Order: sequence, then structure tokens, then C-alpha cells
Amino acid sequence: MLTLSKKAQAMPASPIRKLVPYADAAKKRGVKVYHLNIGQPDIESPKEALEAVKKNKLKVVAYAKSGGVDSLREGLAGYYKNIGIKVEASDIIITNGGSEALQIALAATCDPTDEVIVFEPFYTNYNAFALQNDVKLVPVTTKIEDGFALPSMAEVEKKITKKTKGVVICNPGNPTGCLYSKESLLELGKIAKKHGLFIYADEVYREFCYTDAPHFSCMHIPGLEDNVILLDSVSKRYSLCGARIGYLVTRNKEVSAAVMKFAMARLCSPSYGQIAAEGALDAPASYFKAVRDEYIHRRDVLIEGLQKIDGVICPKPMGAFYAAAELPVDDAETFAKWLLEEFSYNGETVMVAPMGGFYATPGKGKTQIRMAYVLKERDLKHALVCLKKALEVYPGRVEPQKAAKKAAPKAAPAKRCCKKKSC
Amino acid sequence: MLTLSKKAQAMPASPIRKLVPYADAAKKRGVKVYHLNIGQPDIESPKEALEAVKKNKLKVVAYAKSGGVDSLREGLAGYYKNIGIKVEASDIIITNGGSEALQIALAATCDPTDEVIVFEPFYTNYNAFALQNDVKLVPVTTKIEDGFALPSMAEVEKKITKKTKGVVICNPGNPTGCLYSKESLLELGKIAKKHGLFIYADEVYREFCYTDAPHFSCMHIPGLEDNVILLDSVSKRYSLCGARIGYLVTRNKEVSAAVMKFAMARLCSPSYGQIAAEGALDAPASYFKAVRDEYIHRRDVLIEGLQKIDGVICPKPMGAFYAAAELPVDDAETFAKWLLEEFSYNGETVMVAPMGGFYATPGKGKTQIRMAYVLKERDLKHALVCLKKALEVYPGRVEPQKAAKKAAPKAAPAKRCCKKKSC
Repeated sequence: MLTLSKKAQAMPASPIRKLVPYADAAKKRGVKVYHLNIGQPDIESPKEALEAVKKNKLKVVAYAKSGGVDSLREGLAGYYKNIGIKVEASDIIITNGGSEALQIALAATCDPTDEVIVFEPFYTNYNAFALQNDVKLVPVTTKIEDGFALPSMAEVEKKITKKTKGVVICNPGNPTGCLYSKESLLELGKIAKKHGLFIYADEVYREFCYTDAPHFSCMHIPGLEDNVILLDSVSKRYSLCGARIGYLVTRNKEVSAAVMKFAMARLCSPSYGQIAAEGALDAPASYFKAVRDEYIHRRDVLIEGLQKIDGVICPKPMGAFYAAAELPVDDAETFAKWLLEEFSYNGETVMVAPMGGFYATPGKGKTQIRMAYVLKERDLKHALVCLKKALEVYPGRVEPQKAAKKAAPKAAPAKRCCKKKSC
Repeated sequence: MLTLSKKAQAMPASPIRKLVPYADAAKKRGVKVYHLNIGQPDIESPKEALEAVKKNKLKVVAYAKSGGVDSLREGLAGYYKNIGIKVEASDIIITNGGSEALQIALAATCDPTDEVIVFEPFYTNYNAFALQNDVKLVPVTTKIEDGFALPSMAEVEKKITKKTKGVVICNPGNPTGCLYSKESLLELGKIAKKHGLFIYADEVYREFCYTDAPHFSCMHIPGLEDNVILLDSVSKRYSLCGARIGYLVTRNKEVSAAVMKFAMARLCSPSYGQIAAEGALDAPASYFKAVRDEYIHRRDVLIEGLQKIDGVICPKPMGAFYAAAELPVDDAETFAKWLLEEFSYNGETVMVAPMGGFYATPGKGKTQIRMAYVLKERDLKHALVCLKKALEVYPGRVEPQKAAKKAAPKAAPAKRCCKKKSC
């Protein structure tokens, strides 16, 4: 029978990308669409990366080694050393973006029906990677009224069963922008050690932290050498999303040997992308400083704008370049589609990602959206105007829920997303 | 527990790549190693592809669309039209190499424990893609004494069960170089139609056919529009292995919609690789003519050389750039390792791929090796000298098996690999 697999039927369409045909149709009608739906920065890639590719001398674009180009792996070991993470080049395996890094990490460590704990809302594609490996994601909910801070570790321990293989943590977080504290990560480390769990540490937004303290990595937690599998990427760090270069880093030799077998099966990561990634390692500190300053500015523009819209609640993110907001709407997906299909203001509209697909608990996040503040100030301001005007006329507008209203004062504090020690 | 998954434990190390550390050690000792183990051509990529990348004007290396860059998909629709395959741009999904194309094809169509028939020996990484999807590969053996021709369809039908979802066919074949005839593929098409099976058609070596007739694609079989999923790649065609660009092509709209969901989950294929692939579409016919002539010459050098080595049996391949040979040795893997660890002749040795891992039936192929004739004539000749000298002194040499001896006269015919209609 020419039937699809159960996985194919269960595989969710990406909430970030599935509305693209509606956006395309709007553009065809002449409507300008501001894309807040996707974390595609408009920041230029470092010229060191772009030039490395332009000046490449390849005559034969040959397979690279399955684990990655030696010089890139060595360069990365140096990068990690500079941020206090001691790893050898052989601990680093180059992957097809951070996506493949997590996909292989799960494949190498989890059997079908095994469980992995995840803090929801979480990056929606974790659903797909779990499904592809028949792994069950077990959510621990973080709340918008707490600024999406990590809950107490007692909440986490409640979810641990014999089938639990690990915990996925994204820090700073996508889609929340929440930056977890050193203290909360050390607590999580204790739980991982006690129960023998892997920590799948998605730190692709490491360079986007808006506090004065340096980023605290799960790789910094003492005594967890065998537990932590770091998932990393050049996509956001260097605005090289299309290069498709990520890294899986672990000091657990058994895991890295297994990961190498998966890497061999798909031969290698892209050669040109690896050239760009190696070039990017030469980007000066000033590149990151300028990028960070720009994102802080954009965040402030977005959050201040959102605060002025009646009924919208949005904690101030301290990392990454996302903000997760509660809207006074019946259904965020219906609203997002309506924005593209039926609404425009001065010939413009905005595309956002509805957040239902960022939760594993059915029904949660139905009135939340994720916005990526990856656009210039002017564009962000136009997008905010569209959002404000849209919420005024959207037929499915509802008054903010009681709970959300109550959360409002906490949700947008001056300096950090909340007062919880764990955030 | 910090344990590996069962899949990770079962995942075979690539027989093509797992001996690389021994080759590296040999090189460190100053021994020159001729790499016949891997299908990495030394042929230059078309200048149209290389220049397209060098002249790219990207300032932001952004995500591409998940299904691929529109202009590349349209260009490819034109390429297929030229070879008599009518598909729309939307029927073509760009993947991370041909590897991901098959991986996703299986994920989208097969449930765990489903079965897929495959003609052994087959491209060894099919094992990994099947394992990743919990799919059981059911082998139908092709024999060296028949030049690896397709067996009768009665043999195929014997293997069909309620769990059979499809048949993987690689034409021209890796590792055998066997080119299947139109007639045999039409027969296979009838079986697929009768039993409602997918045909996963791996045609990445389409441009490497050494007969006068044009390549007959599974996409040419009438009435199989919904059955055929074509897996394709720029890797070999344009010597762009490192670009990591492949294609999944199907007219089955339900399948392509499902594949798109998997494609969205990993965001996109590499941008630079897609630029190279699009550039390559402008390569003139003379590029392929020169490449084809070169491979025919190399094949002839290799096969003539092998025929002069006592005890070696190798059918003449009519496609791709591989030759599969039976050796007078106790174990091909032991021999391949010994070549790197203990043997050298005039400071040189040769690396080959032992073929046990190219079979699903345990024990088969133990005394066979795959050689990729991807090196220049001079290098091939040196590699042949090494192989000849090595077989003279290898401690595990055994006299050729009776069956193999019997097959010898058929195995290296003047014009084609065998007289069977199906090859």
C-alpha cells in the first residue's frame, strides 16, 4: 500500500514556517509583510566568513571528513577554551546545523518510548526530532507570569521515570528569551548527576546575553563531563543560518564514538559552510559587541512598543532575540493567519509564530505568539503599529484572561524578566 | 543511566570510512596510500559551479526555503525535462545530499518493522538509513558470476510480505557498477504496481552509463507516478560531493507534502551548495562527455589490470565508477586492514572497501572488495601493482573458491558484464 508512515502523519508542520504560503499570497497582493515569525537575522555575516568563501581555492568540492574539517575543529576547541570550556578538537563533531546535532544526540542515546524532559514552551522543532526518534517529550511548564523562569527542581524530579534519559535545556531560551542563572543550572546539574541523566544543552544563542555576567554553560557544571551533550551552531552567532553548520560537543567518549557512526552514514557536513564557519572564527570581538548592542536596542524597541498595546503581556527577555507574548485573542494561530489573509494597515502587515506548537501539553500556548526581533528599528516599529491596529479590529479579540492580567505587573520588569532566583 | 541507544550500538561503522585511521597511520609512516575505498572523484567540479560560489553576492547567509531555492528547483525541472522526466519544480525537494533524500523517503513512508526489499550487494549506508527508521532491509542477492544482474522477478515476489513497503534500486549500481536494462526495470515496475510498492530509485550515477543507450530511469516507467520516489544528487554528477546537495523527486503529492514537513524540521539545505548546484546546471555537454570518456578509460585500465592478477574475479561494470571484485583471501576486511598496517610496495599501498557491509545477508561478501576508479590512470596503475604484489605475499591468501573459479569466464566479458537480459 502506498501509504505514509505514522510518523509522517504525526509530524507537525512547523508553526514558524507553515503560514509561509499565506505570506507569499499577501506579498502577491502587494502587501508588505514584516517577518517576526522566524529567527532569520538581517545582521550581516562577518566579512571574514563571506570572504573566506569567496576566496576559496577548491577545484574539486570533495567530501570532508565525517566529523568535520580538522582545522575547523581545532579552531573551535580554541573558541571554547576562551569561554572556559575545555574540550579537545576530537570532542567536537561538525553537523548539518544545530538541528542535526540534537537529532543525532537523541538517536545515539534514546530508544523508542524513552522520555526526555523539556521545559515548555520550547523550540518547536524539538517535537520533530523527538518524533523522528520515537522519543517522548515530557514537558515541565514554565509560566509567562514568572517570566518563563525555570521551576523548582522538585517539579522536574516529579517527572523522572525509569524511561527518562535526559533533559533538553535551551539557554538563552527560544522562544522565551529567558536566560537561566548559574544557580539554577547547578541545581539542574545535581538532578542530572543523581539520576544519571544526559543534559542536551542547546546553547546556540550563547552570544546573545543581555546581562553583565558571562554566559554560564552547562559545560561549566563540575562533575558532569559524561552527562552533558552541547548543541551549538554558527547560524545565529554569525548570521550564517544558510551555511548549515552546527556542532555536537561532548567529553563523553562513548557518546562521541556513537555520534561519529551516525555522522559517517550521512558522509559529511557542507564544505563551503565549513569554510565560512572557519572564517567566522576570525571575526573580531567588535563584531559581537555591535551585534549585541543592536539586539538590546531592538529588544527595547519591541518590548516598549508591546507594553503600549492594550491587553498584550510580554516579559522582558534577557537573551536570544525572541519575545513570547500573551495576546487578547481567541486563538493565536487564527489571528496569525488572519493577519496575512485579511488584514493590512497602510499596505503592511506582520507575520508572527503562533505558540501552540511550542508546547507539548495540549491546549497550552493557544493565545501566545513568538516574535523574533531580527529586524531594523524602523521595521520593528512598523510591525508594532500593524500589531496594535490589528488587535483593535481583529474579530476574535477577547479580553485578557484573569490569570494573564494578574501577571502583567511582573511580566515586564525594568531590568530582568522576573525576580526568581532561577531565571 | 548514561547508556547509548540500541540503534547506536547496532549502527555499523562505515566499511568505506572505518579504516581511515589505519590509512592516516600509514601516511604518518610516510607510505603513499591510493584511495580506491571511496567514491571521491578527482575530476574537477565544473567551473560554472565553482565560479557561481566565488561570485556570490550574499551579505547575509540566510536560511533558504525548506524545499530549496526556487530558481534551483525550476532549473532542475528543466534538467529532468531534457532527459524525458516530466516533473514540476514543486515535485523536487532539495536535500542535504542524496543521503538525506533516502533517509527522509524512508521516514515518510515506512513504519517501524516495515520491510524494504533491496538487491545486495548494495550501497552500505542503506543499512544506516534503514536502522535509523527501524526498517528491515530484505535482501535479494545478486551474484558476481551473473555480473550482479537483477534476478528474476519471481525471486523478488518471494520476498514480498504484508510488511513490504517498497524496493530500493540503485541504477547504475553502487557497489557493482551494474547497469540495469529497460526491460528488467519495466518488469520491476509491474511488480511494484501489482503489490502497491514504492520504488526508491537511487539514480545518482545516472550520468555515468557506458553503453550507447540513454539511461532508463524508474521515472520513465508508465503508470508508476505515485510509486516512484527518485533520489538524486549533484555529488558525483558534478564532482560536488562536499556541496551536500541532493534531490528527492516524486509526483506523489501526498508523499511530497509529508517530505516537506521533515524538510521544515531541519530548516533548509546549505545555501552555498545550492548556489554551486544551480551554477552546475550551466555546465556544457562537453563537461559530461569528457568525464564519461575519462571514466571509461579508467574502468578499462582497472579491469584489464585486475584480469592479470591471479585469482581475482571482477565483472566489467557498465555504469557508475565502481568495480566489485572477488579476491583470493581469507577475509577482505582483514586483508584491507593488512594493506594499510603491514604492507607497502615501493613505499606505496592501496585502500579498498571490504564488501561484507554491503550485504544484508550475514556472511556474504566476505571475500569481496569494492574499488572506486576515481583516480588518474597513473595512480590506478600504481594501485594495481600494489594489489598484485600484496596478494602474492598476503599471509591469508587462499585459493579461489570453486564457485568463483567457475564464474571467471563469464565475469569479465568483452562488452558487457553478462548476457542476462536483466543486466
